[in-house]
Amino acid sequence: MIVAGIMTGTSVDAIDIATCDITSKGDRQTISLLSFTSAPFEEETRLLIHRCMRSEADMQDLCDLPFLLAREFAVRFADHCAASGIRPEALAVHGQTLWHHPTVSTWQALAGPALSALTDLPVVHDFRSADVALGGQGAPLVPIYDHAVYADDTLNRVTLNIGGMANMTILPAGVPSSKVVAFDCGPGNVWIDGATRLTYGKSFDTNGAIARAGSVLRPFLAELTSLPYFALDPPKSTGRELFTMQELKRLITKYSHPSSPLEDVVTTLTELTAWSIVDHLRRYASEAGEVIVSGGGSQNTYLIERLSALSAEMDSRCTFRIDTQWAAKEAMAFAYLGWRTLQGLPGNLPSVTGAERDVVLGTIARA
Amino acid sequence: MIVAGIMTGTSVDAIDIATCDITSKGDRQTISLLSFTSAPFEEETRLLIHRCMRSEADMQDLCDLPFLLAREFAVRFADHCAASGIRPEALAVHGQTLWHHPTVSTWQALAGPALSALTDLPVVHDFRSADVALGGQGAPLVPIYDHAVYADDTLNRVTLNIGGMANMTILPAGVPSSKVVAFDCGPGNVWIDGATRLTYGKSFDTNGAIARAGSVLRPFLAELTSLPYFALDPPKSTGRELFTMQELKRLITKYSHPSSPLEDVVTTLTELTAWSIVDHLRRYASEAGEVIVSGGGSQNTYLIERLSALSAEMDSRCTFRIDTQWAAKEAMAFAYLGWRTLQGLPGNLPSVTGAERDVVLGTIARA
Repeated sequence: MIVAGIMTGTSVDAIDIATCDITSKGDRQTISLLSFTSAPFEEETRLLIHRCMRSEADMQDLCDLPFLLAREFAVRFADHCAASGIRPEALAVHGQTLWHHPTVSTWQALAGPALSALTDLPVVHDFRSADVALGGQGAPLVPIYDHAVYADDTLNRVTLNIGGMANMTILPAGVPSSKVVAFDCGPGNVWIDGATRLTYGKSFDTNGAIARAGSVLRPFLAELTSLPYFALDPPKSTGRELFTMQELKRLITKYSHPSSPLEDVVTTLTELTAWSIVDHLRRYASEAGEVIVSGGGSQNTYLIERLSALSAEMDSRCTFRIDTQWAAKEAMAFAYLGWRTLQGLPGNLPSVTGAERDVVLGTIARA
Repeated sequence: MIVAGIMTGTSVDAIDIATCDITSKGDRQTISLLSFTSAPFEEETRLLIHRCMRSEADMQDLCDLPFLLAREFAVRFADHCAASGIRPEALAVHGQTLWHHPTVSTWQALAGPALSALTDLPVVHDFRSADVALGGQGAPLVPIYDHAVYADDTLNRVTLNIGGMANMTILPAGVPSSKVVAFDCGPGNVWIDGATRLTYGKSFDTNGAIARAGSVLRPFLAELTSLPYFALDPPKSTGRELFTMQELKRLITKYSHPSSPLEDVVTTLTELTAWSIVDHLRRYASEAGEVIVSGGGSQNTYLIERLSALSAEMDSRCTFRIDTQWAAKEAMAFAYLGWRTLQGLPGNLPSVTGAERDVVLGTIARA
């Protein structure tokens, strides 16, 4: 079955579309990427999403946004199909996260029936709500895909996605999906990008060049690493609600003296992301042999070097490898999750989300 | 197939649940009511919904509400099933309207996958979005049900629902569903209830007793009937956005002199509702033989008398009959709409909503 996944993250930088061919043999699936496009949001939409996330939107804005997204996704999807010449049989759409209140509620904006009416295709959407209703965090959902694609019979693997937040899926050799452990470590790029914007006015630190030029501000790093989220045991998930720009500004004001180089702030926040990832590897995946890195953060070469350097102090030797599908992976994962829903198969892993049981995720519009 | 419809209106007074047996012969269906319950909202939920509607809710409130509704509907539904001993095969849920921006967007809050996970049943929800995406008003949706249940081969019928707003579906003898005309006439109970609250401090005028005791204030009625909405031709739909409490207060202050009896205000607003209904009958259903009345307003005996009196001046003789299912009708209509979606049948009537085509409505969660 050919399914397209549409992914938009909390960074609101792009609409990622991955068309995948998913075939099933027994209870194993292969997922092949047929085409991938990533297009920026329309400026108007991006600004509206940010207004919503900052609680500055009114009810009409909040009513309009799911329809604006449906219309924009329909246009991007038509472009995507035209570019590849492939028309999928169904769409699986994450929707735009506006709020996440773990185990209580979650909000992925999209008018699914509207997108279905505009594309004439079944649309699977609202993937996180059923898990939340069953006491789960509603996140992460990618681990079942990680297990299907990356679990190995002999290698201890970890998949690490560095998006706005950083999350990892721990896949010991031969692990069954019911035993997979996965969680958000903490911030991925969100505070690195934020600090780069505040100090250099750039939207991100290309290749980690700014961070490489600076030094870690030790007292700043010490306060950052003492934030309570890091010490929690899984299952755990987090988002921009906890790692806010307000809190970042407060901390930068506290620790960055006018005399110290601006890049030190970026270096310190890059070190925080590296430290938090390696600390979680040490605590929950000390036998990991291979860490497969995806997400925008995989392109930050300085960050990857820091991961390697910090992990050298771990007991077992682990190598960091950039996923060949580092950009398309999340959209592919949602194509796979949508396929599971269309087959009537559960998509959450209770060992990961903390839900009381596994459940078929989402809702299907067939306008 | 046994389907339960769950309806909650913009008055936020009750959660109506109707379990229906729907059977199909060719392209005709019979819809039998098996059980009906109506329970008030939890006070906390009702207040939160009103805060949302008044734009006083924050993002966390708006994120939580669809889950609060799913949990409350699940409890009410369990009570409903326990009372009747019947467990339906699926749920069709209108969701709580928070905003309606005709032809642009619409917002019926409910975490459908959450309700499906909590009830272990398929849940059809978000009925209005696909029609809006296709340029429609997203309302009214009940006319396809009116056609299925009330259209007659020899009688010219009209169905009239007097809720907060009053709407009618015009069903000439033998009319095909594609030719049905339906629209909102204007206010139903909203201003009668509002005036009763402002003058007598009661939430509604039981049996129309207050209105019956007063006299119509002619200059007040003249200004009311000149409001531009009444003169518009269908398709048209309206809501509390146009007929606000603020406007009502302004008009009462202008026309109700301290010396005139308080009941005259209620009489005048009851006359407005009756006039507007009969005026629309005269303009668009002058051949109507039977008008079948549902909604809370059907219990206002004085209003029904005024409808009969005013319609006596019409060319053809029409009688007003109270629907035996006056309370359950809207919940039954959504059970039927959900059944249509589960069968892959379209649910909107483009002649009514103005959408560019008919479409399968909603989205189906099968957690």
